[in-house]
Amino acid sequence: MNIDDRKYAPIGVFDSGVGGLTVAREIMRQLPKEDIVYFGDTARVPYGSKSKDNIIRYSRQIVRFLQTKDVKAIVIACNTASALALDIVRNETDIPVLGVVVPGAKSALQATRTKKIGVIGTEATIRSEMYTKVMKEMEPDVEVTGKACPLFVPLVEEGFAKHHVTEEIIEYYLKSMKESDIDTLILGCTHYPLLRSGIRAYMGEEVNIVNPAYETAMNLKQLLEEKQIAKDVSEGAHAEYDFYVSDAAEKFRQFAGTIWPCEIDTTKQISIEEY
Amino acid sequence: MNIDDRKYAPIGVFDSGVGGLTVAREIMRQLPKEDIVYFGDTARVPYGSKSKDNIIRYSRQIVRFLQTKDVKAIVIACNTASALALDIVRNETDIPVLGVVVPGAKSALQATRTKKIGVIGTEATIRSEMYTKVMKEMEPDVEVTGKACPLFVPLVEEGFAKHHVTEEIIEYYLKSMKESDIDTLILGCTHYPLLRSGIRAYMGEEVNIVNPAYETAMNLKQLLEEKQIAKDVSEGAHAEYDFYVSDAAEKFRQFAGTIWPCEIDTTKQISIEEY
Repeated sequence: MNIDDRKYAPIGVFDSGVGGLTVAREIMRQLPKEDIVYFGDTARVPYGSKSKDNIIRYSRQIVRFLQTKDVKAIVIACNTASALALDIVRNETDIPVLGVVVPGAKSALQATRTKKIGVIGTEATIRSEMYTKVMKEMEPDVEVTGKACPLFVPLVEEGFAKHHVTEEIIEYYLKSMKESDIDTLILGCTHYPLLRSGIRAYMGEEVNIVNPAYETAMNLKQLLEEKQIAKDVSEGAHAEYDFYVSDAAEKFRQFAGTIWPCEIDTTKQISIEEY
Repeated sequence: MNIDDRKYAPIGVFDSGVGGLTVAREIMRQLPKEDIVYFGDTARVPYGSKSKDNIIRYSRQIVRFLQTKDVKAIVIACNTASALALDIVRNETDIPVLGVVVPGAKSALQATRTKKIGVIGTEATIRSEMYTKVMKEMEPDVEVTGKACPLFVPLVEEGFAKHHVTEEIIEYYLKSMKESDIDTLILGCTHYPLLRSGIRAYMGEEVNIVNPAYETAMNLKQLLEEKQIAKDVSEGAHAEYDFYVSDAAEKFRQFAGTIWPCEIDTTKQISIEEY
């Protein structure tokens, strides 16, 4: 593809499931002209409790699938896959690949005054200590406290985001974080922005809450401009959004409706293991 | 294999993850001489939110894997796979295959006086209405109420079985069940026996609580005797238990320790998609 054709190619965004739509939604807001091909690996969700080897294998298959859609850039919206597979898949393709961890880490370092930062995420993300590694490379003095919160995803997906038992579970997981002296908390899982108001209420106004999706979309914008592959159409032209999943497309569509700002007309199911 | 060799072959037991150990444990209790090969599909857990096509494909792969271990019978410990895949995989192999749904249904019909029975399970199990179909075939007058309880599995796996938020979530899911006039409740998911005391406390002493694992082990015993393939060794000989998983063996071992009555020395990880 020459540069002019690449301008009109879509952005590939993938996640272990539906949560990555919080990242795709931010890309849609900041880059409203860009087309998006979204893939949610609903057959193999959740990634957060799985091993590094499997997460790398899954990510490779998804990158191969997105390449069949001629994407011009790929965003790994999933924190777990960003933490465990980004470096590997990035080296295996010519297409630029962005994760959410580096942008999230950068955001948190910009926000903190005390250099004491908390990170919450899945077991695999927290175990990887990837946020810590990335932040320490940028700012060696930073102190990072991580906490895995495995019940947050099922609670959100079951519609319990505003239920009072969720407040208790937020307290259960974040108590040690609140008692520490962090001034910034990274929402290191795509579902967690959907619990933002509960987390904000518990942690208090003085703690900065960082959603990596915002900075990720900013970084994507910058990358497209640098490489001169940003879509160049007149204002008002409609962007196209395509959704693919590996299982149970109908269920995805229902929950996606609570995140995605527009109607999702069609969701296509594919056999990801064939890629 | 001739009958004498088959007597000494192990029983294959499989589940989407670790929950099926509640069924394997019951087989161990009722058939203490029998060797067991257990497979937990931890790379693709949970099955309960996935489509029928994928659950059938997964079950076929696992049956093929268990056949490489020369099992003499297979127990599908997973309610979801029993509900959606038993009939298909049973027709594709010469080895006898048992699920947990028919034994659970039979138990419930024996226990009920009012013929009003409740079933709780995963979304896929409840959506399949398999318990209802099986019970109505045996007893057309029975009235069955189903309820999916998707948060029970993550709560159990996160060690919240005795936590008071779990009491609230039990109430949330079972309120309509308690207000109905069922006299028997089937625990239609292998994790739910681990919430038995909370469910019992909420539902009250007058409701019979049925764990299909018990009747499944009884049916297996009967089947082995009928086919003359029950293991025939002197009392006191040790049975062997082998554990296989598709991902993150260490994590399986940790949680398995809360269900399985003995130390699990080794858990082997295999690539189930190759079968």
